[in-house]
Amino acid sequence: MNRQYEECIKICMEYLEACNTCFDSCLKEDDVKMMTKCIRYDRACADACMFAIQAMVSNSPFIDEICNLCADICERCAEECAKHNHEHCQQCARTCQKCADACRNMSA
Amino acid sequence: MNRQYEECIKICMEYLEACNTCFDSCLKEDDVKMMTKCIRYDRACADACMFAIQAMVSNSPFIDEICNLCADICERCAEECAKHNHEHCQQCARTCQKCADACRNMSA
Amino acid sequence: MNRQYEECIKICMEYLEACNTCFDSCLKEDDVKMMTKCIRYDRACADACMFAIQAMVSNSPFIDEICNLCADICERCAEECAKHNHEHCQQCARTCQKCADACRNMSA
Amino acid sequence: MNRQYEECIKICMEYLEACNTCFDSCLKEDDVKMMTKCIRYDRACADACMFAIQAMVSNSPFIDEICNLCADICERCAEECAKHNHEHCQQCARTCQKCADACRNMSA
Repeated sequence: MNRQYEECIKICMEYLEACNTCFDSCLKEDDVKMMTKCIRYDRACADACMFAIQAMVSNSPFIDEICNLCADICERCAEECAKHNHEHCQQCARTCQKCADACRNMSA
Repeated sequence: MNRQYEECIKICMEYLEACNTCFDSCLKEDDVKMMTKCIRYDRACADACMFAIQAMVSNSPFIDEICNLCADICERCAEECAKHNHEHCQQCARTCQKCADACRNMSA
Repeated sequence: MNRQYEECIKICMEYLEACNTCFDSCLKEDDVKMMTKCIRYDRACADACMFAIQAMVSNSPFIDEICNLCADICERCAEECAKHNHEHCQQCARTCQKCADACRNMSA
Repeated sequence: MNRQYEECIKICMEYLEACNTCFDSCLKEDDVKMMTKCIRYDRACADACMFAIQAMVSNSPFIDEICNLCADICERCAEECAKHNHEHCQQCARTCQKCADACRNMSA
């Protein structure tokens, strides 16, 4: 695994932690009904990130395309999360954007 | 893919449909705070089922062990879903138990 | 799950069967060293297809983007498989192209 | 994510790197026909490890069961890899056993 993948995988893992914390925390919020889109995006974006990690760690012939898709999905998830003031949403949005940038660089 | 896998995969796919419908529907319920455990179990059980389908369709050397785990997880998810009266939970519980039985047979 | 997803998932599953048969059969060929690219593409393409099925069956907010990626990857895998005369490769190439078309339609 | 998961995930990621290197390297060996079981086990074991990482990072309700399965599968993959003298197989076997131990601890 080259250095560049290693760094991107690390960022993806940090995002996954924040994303799944956000998923669980949203479910515990009083205004959970306001958070349903955020919950659905968290789940789908976590799946996309796991898929990108799998591609990088297995040296897939399609890393570029997969990281590009992951960047697209992360950007949309970051936008959604950023709308909510809960600290876990803001933290999720920040790491999600960082993950989008790292994946975009990987696919360039 | 032998006949036996084909039938089990079909049952897993039917469950996945009911399980994901239950996930989305729980998020729309008025009493969504009552449904958070169900929502978490739906997500985790769907992941286990996808993993079992992947094992069966790729003729994994570990089909028995994986289907056995999927059966264990489905049984616990079916128990949780059965506690809730929403029709999507009851439907999820029924197909989940059917899926548990099919996976248990596969691993026998 | 709407009708359209159901048909696309069915085609993806048929492809996965052919793809994994091709993977296992390539490993048994006398000229296995000629087949290494095909083996790597089969594995990576099967992963992409599983990811697309997961997106469709869980009604992901990102189905369009994911099915589009799956179509791209399937097209490249179909090209690679079509180069080899083994019946399992030809069968894999055909179902892979069919899968690419179905996923492309889904993302349109 | 608690400290204990973090360490286990790190060990799983190190194994995944060695496992996928072994997969690719086996395909390049002159005696690739001797390596087909190793190639199939590498692929299946990598999938099990990704599934365990997903469970840990998403705080799945079924972490214990999933890590236990991953430990079982890793032990069988380590046994297979240890039979081959290629350095990538020996390296894979060592990290695989380490991964099995970490996952077994996690499920205890």
